[in-house]
Amino acid sequence: MVPHLVTALTGPINELEQRVLDSMPAIERWFRLEWMEHTPPFYGAVDIRNAGFKLAPVDTSLFPRGWNHLTPQLLPLAVQSAMAAIEKICPEAKNLLLIPESHQTQNTFYLSSVAQLQRIFHMAGLNVRVGSISPDIKESTPIALPNGDRIVLEPVIRSKRRLGLKDFDPCTILLNNDLSAGPPGILEDLHEQYLLPPLHAGWSVRRKSTHFRIYEEISKRFGKLLGIDPWLINPMFNKCGEVNFADGTGMECLTANVDALLTKVRRKYKEYGINEKPFVIVKADDATDGMGIMTVRDVKDLETLGRKSKTKAKGSKDGLPPVHDVIIQEGVLTNERVHDAVAEPVVYTMDRYVVGGFYRIHADRGTDEDLNIPGSRYVPLAFAESSLLPQSGMHPGASAPNRFYMYGVIARLAMVAASYEMEATDPDAEVYD
Amino acid sequence: MVPHLVTALTGPINELEQRVLDSMPAIERWFRLEWMEHTPPFYGAVDIRNAGFKLAPVDTSLFPRGWNHLTPQLLPLAVQSAMAAIEKICPEAKNLLLIPESHQTQNTFYLSSVAQLQRIFHMAGLNVRVGSISPDIKESTPIALPNGDRIVLEPVIRSKRRLGLKDFDPCTILLNNDLSAGPPGILEDLHEQYLLPPLHAGWSVRRKSTHFRIYEEISKRFGKLLGIDPWLINPMFNKCGEVNFADGTGMECLTANVDALLTKVRRKYKEYGINEKPFVIVKADDATDGMGIMTVRDVKDLETLGRKSKTKAKGSKDGLPPVHDVIIQEGVLTNERVHDAVAEPVVYTMDRYVVGGFYRIHADRGTDEDLNIPGSRYVPLAFAESSLLPQSGMHPGASAPNRFYMYGVIARLAMVAASYEMEATDPDAEVYD
Repeated sequence: MVPHLVTALTGPINELEQRVLDSMPAIERWFRLEWMEHTPPFYGAVDIRNAGFKLAPVDTSLFPRGWNHLTPQLLPLAVQSAMAAIEKICPEAKNLLLIPESHQTQNTFYLSSVAQLQRIFHMAGLNVRVGSISPDIKESTPIALPNGDRIVLEPVIRSKRRLGLKDFDPCTILLNNDLSAGPPGILEDLHEQYLLPPLHAGWSVRRKSTHFRIYEEISKRFGKLLGIDPWLINPMFNKCGEVNFADGTGMECLTANVDALLTKVRRKYKEYGINEKPFVIVKADDATDGMGIMTVRDVKDLETLGRKSKTKAKGSKDGLPPVHDVIIQEGVLTNERVHDAVAEPVVYTMDRYVVGGFYRIHADRGTDEDLNIPGSRYVPLAFAESSLLPQSGMHPGASAPNRFYMYGVIARLAMVAASYEMEATDPDAEVYD
Repeated sequence: MVPHLVTALTGPINELEQRVLDSMPAIERWFRLEWMEHTPPFYGAVDIRNAGFKLAPVDTSLFPRGWNHLTPQLLPLAVQSAMAAIEKICPEAKNLLLIPESHQTQNTFYLSSVAQLQRIFHMAGLNVRVGSISPDIKESTPIALPNGDRIVLEPVIRSKRRLGLKDFDPCTILLNNDLSAGPPGILEDLHEQYLLPPLHAGWSVRRKSTHFRIYEEISKRFGKLLGIDPWLINPMFNKCGEVNFADGTGMECLTANVDALLTKVRRKYKEYGINEKPFVIVKADDATDGMGIMTVRDVKDLETLGRKSKTKAKGSKDGLPPVHDVIIQEGVLTNERVHDAVAEPVVYTMDRYVVGGFYRIHADRGTDEDLNIPGSRYVPLAFAESSLLPQSGMHPGASAPNRFYMYGVIARLAMVAASYEMEATDPDAEVYD
């Protein structure tokens, strides 16, 4: 299926595309040198928004799901990257234990993604079995998947020093569980086995504001390499601690910061002659689900959100309204459409490589709204041929492969940021001062 | 273009395919462990013959040409492999100098392959220029290619310690020149730059008999891993020194060895109940062009070949008939057809990865003859999707991807052999005894 793209990209983004293409050897060398010093995240998925005048990552997942939405044409790339990743970490590995999300044991869409990961690592040369840490899985549980495949969830068995399954002792454990409830004890102190990604890549430790602070630094260095304003690839942000919409805690901080960020964005739009209404996205800094992702176009919107939240909180289980650290991120419009629906690209990486991606589309959402909500659909980012390779000599904006190459560069910048982030937050890091 | 394959594979080869598929994790792990200890050849191409009852490499090139025949769909794999290869050898590299065959400066088909290599390494993030060591190239020479591209051949400039072009100082030099006339002085003593592959990969040093002696050892170890008779993947061989068809030198050795090998093959055919006429291939051990590649079905054929050769030798330039070391290789029938023409797969590798391949086909040749002669055509080995990835659960012999996976395994075995061969013939190797 070849997505029918309706995208009128003009202005700065085409200039950026041209610079990215002209600088390809320098860019690839820059990444090579980064990866000499820093370990790439084992895998990742980056949500990207292309406003036509600006292109930026807005969310970086280190436990990506949605592998089943990637086109089969690009599967060999994922397998080759998986081979490269395994070779570096544990070439002698025979067995890989894959640990999926615990609360998704009934979700066959999510499990189709897990089955695809299992396939990729099997083809990379490993015996892969899926071990659930959910208390619901008490015995080997085969589950039929929508595409006719099946997956078997098995209960994990923890010994003093190792984690495994019945008759299956893995040397490597691959987490596809974002640990938002905190690392379960069963995954701690596994010093004999490789645990990938590490526990501190989970959302109980990660903060979006940390990721985007580091990304901002990287976008500055990368902007210097390309000779561009880093704002063209960087979403600005502010943060506030302990915000509670229901009882009004922290609303002063939020209002002040939303206002300040909208002013900064307005100034940038003026500098570039952009006739769009600035907006910001307010979301939990630690990616907990409870508070949602809110588009705020004006500080007055916050009052409305506050009222809504109060109503909701009344129904909450324990009676305590949720308190969140909050990130206020510059909103990046998405100017891409698939047929009539608003679309945003999601780019997948494994080790240091881009292995594919898709458009997330939603027919009922606007260009300034989050698309990652129920009702979204997925269209592979793969065209008839070699969609990840740029074509030189094409008019900027006219070549889908060139645009995808640019998306791959932005996704890899986010992965460099994630790599620095993992170093900065590693609890076992040796500190030299 | 999807090749229309007419292949009736039965018997041992389907059993082999099933074993290969069932053992995939063990096989991939075996390769991982090999590549921990041994450096993969920078790139390679392996001619494979599938007899239906046996599958074996018959020629291993370490300076592959024909890159232009690979399907564009698989180009991202080649680029990713090139990135991996460069990362390991010289991550800080900016400039790559590509040195093509010297006597092919007019051959636009060959130059299309060079242009494709240039494209691959450019996309991997290097500034790539093509430097000719041919005395015919005295200035920068643009050449138009059949597909509308163009390539620029530039004269190399040698300083005391480095090789480069005008205003272009490469850190890495990639040879696509098989050095059959011996390494030219201009490529020697370049200790400051990476020369890939090394000079001793050239045909002035390599011997086919050395390669296949090592391959035989490897096929035994691999056969043990899979629990199969290594003959199923190994072409037997003998060798003779200094054979001259014209004056009869060495014909006794040749006759005795052809006879002995035919007897061995006959015995194997009997063991497996194969109703085919055994044959052997006689060719120069060092791959020099002069003597051709001869199919010998009976010792009596040698007399005919001798007479033909005498007639030819009379016309030779210096009056001296050529003397060759000769390898006598078990002939492997090719049972594959594309449309009506006899076909043999050629598999391309870069670093440790299979990056594609094609069928070499020839309408006028038999199933027991060399196809690598003028008049051959090329059909990419790529199907609609993920042709390099095996499909489990398919009936043996029924799945093209599964067959290609098996071809990729055999090609990689030949690359492991080439790696050992390079170690054994390295003039700079440190010897411990």
